[in-house]
Amino acid sequence: MHDADLIRLTYRIETPGSVEAMAAKIASDQSTGTFVPLPGETPELKARVAARVLSVRHLPPVSASAFPDEAGDATEFNCGEAEIGFPVDAVGTDLAALMTIAIGGVFSIKGLTGIRITDLKLPLSFAGSYPGPQFGLPGSRRLTGVTGRPLIGTIVKPALGLRPHETADMVGELVEAGVDFIKDDEKLMSPAYSPLSERVKAIMPKILDHEQKTGKKVMYAFGISATDPDEMMRNHDLVLEAGGNCAVVNINSIGFGGMAFLRKRSGLVLHAHRNGWDILTRHSHLGFEFSVWQQFWRLLGVDQFQINGIRVKYWEPDESFIRSFKAVTTPIFDESDCAMPVVGSGQWGGQAPDTFAANGSTDLLYLCGGGVVSHPGGPGAGVKAVTQAWEAAVSGMPLEDYAREHPELAEAIQKFGDGRHA
Amino acid sequence: MHDADLIRLTYRIETPGSVEAMAAKIASDQSTGTFVPLPGETPELKARVAARVLSVRHLPPVSASAFPDEAGDATEFNCGEAEIGFPVDAVGTDLAALMTIAIGGVFSIKGLTGIRITDLKLPLSFAGSYPGPQFGLPGSRRLTGVTGRPLIGTIVKPALGLRPHETADMVGELVEAGVDFIKDDEKLMSPAYSPLSERVKAIMPKILDHEQKTGKKVMYAFGISATDPDEMMRNHDLVLEAGGNCAVVNINSIGFGGMAFLRKRSGLVLHAHRNGWDILTRHSHLGFEFSVWQQFWRLLGVDQFQINGIRVKYWEPDESFIRSFKAVTTPIFDESDCAMPVVGSGQWGGQAPDTFAANGSTDLLYLCGGGVVSHPGGPGAGVKAVTQAWEAAVSGMPLEDYAREHPELAEAIQKFGDGRHA
Repeated sequence: MHDADLIRLTYRIETPGSVEAMAAKIASDQSTGTFVPLPGETPELKARVAARVLSVRHLPPVSASAFPDEAGDATEFNCGEAEIGFPVDAVGTDLAALMTIAIGGVFSIKGLTGIRITDLKLPLSFAGSYPGPQFGLPGSRRLTGVTGRPLIGTIVKPALGLRPHETADMVGELVEAGVDFIKDDEKLMSPAYSPLSERVKAIMPKILDHEQKTGKKVMYAFGISATDPDEMMRNHDLVLEAGGNCAVVNINSIGFGGMAFLRKRSGLVLHAHRNGWDILTRHSHLGFEFSVWQQFWRLLGVDQFQINGIRVKYWEPDESFIRSFKAVTTPIFDESDCAMPVVGSGQWGGQAPDTFAANGSTDLLYLCGGGVVSHPGGPGAGVKAVTQAWEAAVSGMPLEDYAREHPELAEAIQKFGDGRHA
Repeated sequence: MHDADLIRLTYRIETPGSVEAMAAKIASDQSTGTFVPLPGETPELKARVAARVLSVRHLPPVSASAFPDEAGDATEFNCGEAEIGFPVDAVGTDLAALMTIAIGGVFSIKGLTGIRITDLKLPLSFAGSYPGPQFGLPGSRRLTGVTGRPLIGTIVKPALGLRPHETADMVGELVEAGVDFIKDDEKLMSPAYSPLSERVKAIMPKILDHEQKTGKKVMYAFGISATDPDEMMRNHDLVLEAGGNCAVVNINSIGFGGMAFLRKRSGLVLHAHRNGWDILTRHSHLGFEFSVWQQFWRLLGVDQFQINGIRVKYWEPDESFIRSFKAVTTPIFDESDCAMPVVGSGQWGGQAPDTFAANGSTDLLYLCGGGVVSHPGGPGAGVKAVTQAWEAAVSGMPLEDYAREHPELAEAIQKFGDGRHA
């Protein structure tokens, strides 16, 4: 079988037993294997659909198991990464099938004390089967008219509790402040005190008036997520008909089905929040690497992907964020399937130099909540400070030096610097 | 605020710091909280939507953290269960919103070394917002005509690789054997070597012929899962139009959106496989209790819920299975929202006495793969053996005693007994 017909997955295996044996078990269980030889099981059909172990790379053993209840009497756990190939003929190109066949069942195998999916290489046959992003980075730049620097965005806060007219007042102020992008907090969808329809009605005039006056259309991402895809489409249509161009989608809550349904019918930039994802990745011997998981969502159509940032206020080590940035900007098949990285959480501009140094790019949406709206000089000064921080980062000048001639940045450093978060 | 207006969630918290402080942080972060006081944040709006800690129950501290990379220098980790109430006015009754607001973000909070959602109590306002199961236990009994004992089911094996005519041959044999229920392995959806349309065309005549001859219609669950809800509906329609009445749905792969879309339009019994779920529950200080997670899916419309069994071949302690059995058969609001428990994995009848002793019920679907098809006397003898095992269990007679006059059971004990798995 030619390699082009294989889906290749890498599993980080932790076990008191043999890593090789566990890899072989994964390959068998997840394709043709059963525990009792069966009459219909012929060598011919095994060859047609069997997964096989391509390689095993050993890692140093560990002294504590990821699943402690599985440890038994063992005091040392063998570790390794096994690459397993699944014939695309056996799986097809359906992502739900791939998730079920090659990933889902693996998490329940006995004898594993830890299991993590660390790599996924899809064959070309997946390329034509999914729409991928409709807008991505180029669409996001075109719609906002921003070139040569990151898009500067902010989030309406507090997360919950503002009524539509209160949100719209804040949006009016933020639009005046010069931001490129504003979003609903991901937790705000359509509660009784702020139905999406009312929010759209209150907010869009602020966006459109500002566009009329200045020619600059701020991208506003409305929280359209809903359990029922039909309802989510009605939400989508409300935004589109009112002249909006973006939506926040909680991908992990709506699932593959919600995302696939929406993307097929969408006219909006789809800004993905991965809310809930952390439980699947926070333990290095359990769950998934983001580089694996994000491929599913990009093929399904995510345009802008929230991936945290440097020195965030929630959990994520900087090096994990840097890997995520690389992941979403690396083609699966070609440039068109890349998502625009959305860098956020506790950002105020102070992390711009390290962000630029690590990723070498300004092709991103830089999201600052408190970093913009809690700037001592108000949101307008906040946007200036963040922009100045990126100018400094790109020119290679230390922030403190650049701040000497840029008072907004100086004030931001005064308020948010020294490890304090925005 | 009256309790009827609260969504109550319980969080098992593990932290080197204060459990109370962490509970307060969850309540704040997941509703109105931000890290910097903001202009729009008034006491009035906080009162309207703020979550609040209702109680904290301390648990013994542990010496190893669930997230080892978060442990720092700590050698002891405080544990406790905090109940937090979320005003339904703030969340609404959308399940994706509930997942996002009350659960998703919690997994990323810093300072936690472990976090698990252990209980969920929904207010009555959710009852009218979701369809719940369309068939459940009564519908499954009515469609199969089986009363007074568990439905006996089996799975076509091997999981992958049989072509439609090969599968149909096996189905013909299983139907003759007297099973009540047959399903595709959850990993079989619609690959090129066995497109669902071909499988339906080959299998349904076997089911319908048998019904013509005997009056007994075997319930066959076809694997209709697909990433794209429109495609899943076409799969659904194929089955329904051919006279089928059941479908396997990989709920964790299709997500809330896929499930909600399907249920609204479904005429089939929806048999849920939770493939992939284990990674969210296998560590007792991480993820979810099944009792929480299953409520979402039952409200969305799961009729039959796979929940493992006693002495299974994959991971799950017996006591966890027993809790799951209780969970799916306990009303959220009333009996109509209960799912039929599907007991499977390594079952052959030998676990019937312990299963009956633990749950006190025969209202279940008992799924045996190898336990039926690999019986030394063939599938017909396998079905008889399993039925006899349940007769013994209900009558309180030891299997070995009952086997004296029931040769099929005796053969099954011979082959599968002593801890060997089917």
